[in-house]
Amino acid sequence: MAVATQTLEEVCINSIRFLAIDAVEKAKSGHPGLPMGAAPMAFVLWDRFMRYNPKNPTWFNRDRFVLSAGHGSMLQYALLYLTGFDSVSIEDIKQFRQWESRTPGHPENFMTAGVEVTTGPLGQGIANGVGLAIAEAHLAAKFNKPDAKIVDHYTYVILGDGCNMEGVSGEACSYAGHLGLGKLIALYDDNHISIDGSTDIAFTEDVSKRFEAYGWHVLHVQDGNTDLEGIAKAIEEAKSVTDKPSFIKVTTTIGYGSPNKANTAGVHGAALGADEVKLTRENLGWEHEPFVVPEDALKHWRKAIERGADYEAEWNKTYDTYKGKYAEEAAEFERYISGKLPDGWDKVLPTYTPEDKAVATRKHSETCLNKLAPVLPELIGGSADLTHSNLTEIKGFGDFQKGQYQNRNIHFGVREHGMGAICNGISLHRSGLIPYGATFLIFTDYMRAAIRLSALSHGGVIWVMTHDSIGQGEDGPTHQPIETLASLRAIPQLTVIRPADGNETSGAYKVAIEKAKQHAPTLLAFTRQNVPNLAGTSIEGVTKGGYTVVDSEGTPELILIGTGSELSLCVTAAEKLTSEGKKVRVVSLPSWELFEAQDAAYKESILPKAVTKRLSVEAGSSLGWHKYVGTEGDTVSIDRFGASAPGGVCLEKFGFSVDNVLAKAKQLLG
Amino acid sequence: MAVATQTLEEVCINSIRFLAIDAVEKAKSGHPGLPMGAAPMAFVLWDRFMRYNPKNPTWFNRDRFVLSAGHGSMLQYALLYLTGFDSVSIEDIKQFRQWESRTPGHPENFMTAGVEVTTGPLGQGIANGVGLAIAEAHLAAKFNKPDAKIVDHYTYVILGDGCNMEGVSGEACSYAGHLGLGKLIALYDDNHISIDGSTDIAFTEDVSKRFEAYGWHVLHVQDGNTDLEGIAKAIEEAKSVTDKPSFIKVTTTIGYGSPNKANTAGVHGAALGADEVKLTRENLGWEHEPFVVPEDALKHWRKAIERGADYEAEWNKTYDTYKGKYAEEAAEFERYISGKLPDGWDKVLPTYTPEDKAVATRKHSETCLNKLAPVLPELIGGSADLTHSNLTEIKGFGDFQKGQYQNRNIHFGVREHGMGAICNGISLHRSGLIPYGATFLIFTDYMRAAIRLSALSHGGVIWVMTHDSIGQGEDGPTHQPIETLASLRAIPQLTVIRPADGNETSGAYKVAIEKAKQHAPTLLAFTRQNVPNLAGTSIEGVTKGGYTVVDSEGTPELILIGTGSELSLCVTAAEKLTSEGKKVRVVSLPSWELFEAQDAAYKESILPKAVTKRLSVEAGSSLGWHKYVGTEGDTVSIDRFGASAPGGVCLEKFGFSVDNVLAKAKQLLG
Repeated sequence: MAVATQTLEEVCINSIRFLAIDAVEKAKSGHPGLPMGAAPMAFVLWDRFMRYNPKNPTWFNRDRFVLSAGHGSMLQYALLYLTGFDSVSIEDIKQFRQWESRTPGHPENFMTAGVEVTTGPLGQGIANGVGLAIAEAHLAAKFNKPDAKIVDHYTYVILGDGCNMEGVSGEACSYAGHLGLGKLIALYDDNHISIDGSTDIAFTEDVSKRFEAYGWHVLHVQDGNTDLEGIAKAIEEAKSVTDKPSFIKVTTTIGYGSPNKANTAGVHGAALGADEVKLTRENLGWEHEPFVVPEDALKHWRKAIERGADYEAEWNKTYDTYKGKYAEEAAEFERYISGKLPDGWDKVLPTYTPEDKAVATRKHSETCLNKLAPVLPELIGGSADLTHSNLTEIKGFGDFQKGQYQNRNIHFGVREHGMGAICNGISLHRSGLIPYGATFLIFTDYMRAAIRLSALSHGGVIWVMTHDSIGQGEDGPTHQPIETLASLRAIPQLTVIRPADGNETSGAYKVAIEKAKQHAPTLLAFTRQNVPNLAGTSIEGVTKGGYTVVDSEGTPELILIGTGSELSLCVTAAEKLTSEGKKVRVVSLPSWELFEAQDAAYKESILPKAVTKRLSVEAGSSLGWHKYVGTEGDTVSIDRFGASAPGGVCLEKFGFSVDNVLAKAKQLLG
Repeated sequence: MAVATQTLEEVCINSIRFLAIDAVEKAKSGHPGLPMGAAPMAFVLWDRFMRYNPKNPTWFNRDRFVLSAGHGSMLQYALLYLTGFDSVSIEDIKQFRQWESRTPGHPENFMTAGVEVTTGPLGQGIANGVGLAIAEAHLAAKFNKPDAKIVDHYTYVILGDGCNMEGVSGEACSYAGHLGLGKLIALYDDNHISIDGSTDIAFTEDVSKRFEAYGWHVLHVQDGNTDLEGIAKAIEEAKSVTDKPSFIKVTTTIGYGSPNKANTAGVHGAALGADEVKLTRENLGWEHEPFVVPEDALKHWRKAIERGADYEAEWNKTYDTYKGKYAEEAAEFERYISGKLPDGWDKVLPTYTPEDKAVATRKHSETCLNKLAPVLPELIGGSADLTHSNLTEIKGFGDFQKGQYQNRNIHFGVREHGMGAICNGISLHRSGLIPYGATFLIFTDYMRAAIRLSALSHGGVIWVMTHDSIGQGEDGPTHQPIETLASLRAIPQLTVIRPADGNETSGAYKVAIEKAKQHAPTLLAFTRQNVPNLAGTSIEGVTKGGYTVVDSEGTPELILIGTGSELSLCVTAAEKLTSEGKKVRVVSLPSWELFEAQDAAYKESILPKAVTKRLSVEAGSSLGWHKYVGTEGDTVSIDRFGASAPGGVCLEKFGFSVDNVLAKAKQLLG
């Protein structure tokens, strides 16, 4: 494997390798994933194909790059440094995996400009890539004109064996094949090694054949270690096939260049160690000091800056033409990119009075989505094969399908996890699109990793979850959420809203849309069953997370706290108790996160410390409610699995009835 | 599609169809999934191939049947009734989807004898099937003798498009292909319809080719509606291939027989309605009253009872031979089946004193697993490609691989969700095996649906989760659990244990092993980083969930409550406070669920109501802690995402230090 003389390109590639080796060696940290085998394909891709502007990382029409094998993060940091991004200096690389550095253990888009999505949890990146490609296809179909293509870029993904083993990647890639996303190109770093050792111990399927079965265009580069022309030819060929995504298997050697650790799992999970680094330097003929990139290589890499400026200038010219000819579309495009909402968009959100018919909040959600869809053309999404249960179709806006990318109803199939990661990708395209993804609330369990990543990586996604309690009914305990709300409320940076009726559903969408534009996700939980419209509920109330909907004269003796479908039980119980001379307040608490964000005075005004007799009523786990009901309060809740029976029966049997609320309230009142 | 005269077999098949139609019509419930197209394959399978004993549903060597497309539950109930299981009477069928019935919306093994696993959440069943087949292969390799095969059965699965779209099925089936599980036979009800409509809208991949890529033996029955011989021939062929699992695509018509709703999504998500039922009866020539099965058909079906008795008798003979020749193995086999633990098994669990070296609890876990493995040969499991991080290898017991099924270290690959469902299947084989599955705690997010199902369906699985906090370190926020413990504690019937040191790790395994034998799952959360062995910790303490490890003289002024790695911070802080004259108790609370199961007096003795100054210390979300610290207490917790830095730095920066515990404690003490 010894290398005699090196071409400039080889030096460029070794620059990636040794920046990574040096950074990992300095950090001495567990699971760095040295990009020794992936460096050549990354070099070819970034040096010869990718269109981006290092000095303007958010230039709109850039090709998107996703390192799905996120444990090789030093590959991405090396690329950003070498090509001249300001976000990663050599000092940053020396701070690899250190507190507050811009070079964290896995690529985090919110820490490092030039990183598009947050990867590390395997399989997510490639699925995000499908979302990025969907966003591009949609915007291209919507905005481009025959004489001015202002949306026209590729999405490139490097993924590894781990990504390919994860179900989420299978879901998303099956769907990408279905959609025929021709501008999605995935390079599979086929190195036969995962953490536990050779992939022979667990992963012997024919990955390429699987991708063919998905409908992808599949290629193979036999020698990804040195055959740069082979890599380039494959990428060319991938670009030439425009009606299918391309999957390029690039066979490489993990730890390429390391005499003793190449082709072993040892190089996957740990630093090489000083001795082996020395041997690798010798073996690859690398005589430079740690963290030093030879000038000629850096000069070559940095040509990316000039190229990037040219790409952007070229695009600007196209855009000028576009703007000149298509002023209206250009204005809309600019609004998209700006992340702004159209003035008065929220005026379409309906309000209700108690005289309005009782309907399920999922039905109110449908109304909101369909009111919003015409005024917010950036709203795009759908369900994981439960469209007519989740009620998420936006009517008149067509199905997003191969060749019909201008449409806005996405049929994700029974692929909750893939849907989640795809929605994240659509949002992280950062072109103003507001993606939404829907399923039954219980099936957030299938996509929890993606929901978490929407929160962590600042994805402005709306998660539309219906059938939000045992009121789900006959499908039984496998389909009835119990602990689900609690488990979602626990996720940092995720706002969970469980509206009680029509007004609160409108409020929930007001919050969700605004948060989406602020790059934050919101999860909405809607009922299957009908609920009455209540007096006192309001959009504004929801924006505060918690508010009083029924109040007593003077200081209350008791506060009933309800969410969603159980708020009406509280209201009815309060009427009864009031008629018996009790002083009862009812607080609607649709969103804990929004309520916690209010100032102390507001919170005290709603839940005064002095009032310790408090009863929460929510058809879900009691977990977390003690924060609001305190040690002297009580909960009407369910801490066991549900049962198969009509929803009303389930609710009644498990204690979600006015009678039981009254009984527990009276117990508290003594 | 009109049918003139019907053969007896056709009447048998229509018996399934009309029992389902009548039950669904009576229940008038949302999502029944009528098994019109799947009835013929089910008939052929149960009537000609399956070996089971309706009068002894738990007869050990029965073929296992899994209805992965669980929404077609009436198929399974019809089969159980028709073949003569006592668990499903015609009255039970009339109670389909009603409160406390034995015919719930989806098949639930804990409600209905003859149902092996709980399905409904799509993709789980086929993955459970892989687990069942693994259990069979392992037990066969372990116990069978050339002259007496006491373990020898097939696992049959019926799955649909939904199952095939879910990533979890892809993970498990890729792994089944790797393992070459020849006695796993899946029948794919290929009806082109999912809830949202034709699969053309979202699912156009070549499923058979994908299974070929996985290494399965793939077959196709073109006309699954009427070609019974074709189905039979395919199953025969599947059985003849012994070194690969078989995938039989059976092309069917959804709603077969319904003149207006066949081949539409309408039949997937709703009852047919009285008019269409009438037309379907006419069309299929079915003149019987609702819920009436013609006598000759029932007589034919019920031959299963006699066959079943014969199968069992035959097996008993084999077993007698076995027992006569191989007494020792037979005794072991009987202990397995009985679900009993060997006497004194827990004596091997180590105990520690503060003088023992500080090591990570994951390391203690490794010690426990390796101490237990020789005395509990039924312990079998592994990691999702993190063996040497999770430290789950049981040394000397070999790798479970194709042709090496006697071994006990399972390499699941990077397939957390598949691992989860497979472990459930191994447990639900109900042969005494104790499966364990391991990954980083954060990646329970990938497998949450399977963990939930282990709890719901009484799966005796041990979930071994390491890297249980921001102490994970450099990998950063994508790999650091924050909300994970809270979200798992919320799951009913799941016991979560986060031990603080060596003694508590032993206690955790004592509980987990016992619970596994009682068919309940336990999730263990272990540290990456070293923790000291503490005075006062004990195995017995863990079994109670919470206990006092350091006490004050007289009534404490303050209680510090710690779990896992943070317990030592409490102990050190308490020493300091005590030296300053404060009365401080330290409570270790490794398991909320175990603590809650104690009687009121015990709980009061540990956390006396009168002591309201309480401080919890846990490197995780505060969610739920208010139940223990009350309104006057406080928490040292983390409610934001973590950061990439050395673990010790993360812990310190986020307040998990003695200094911060002291500061908060002093604030409480006033």
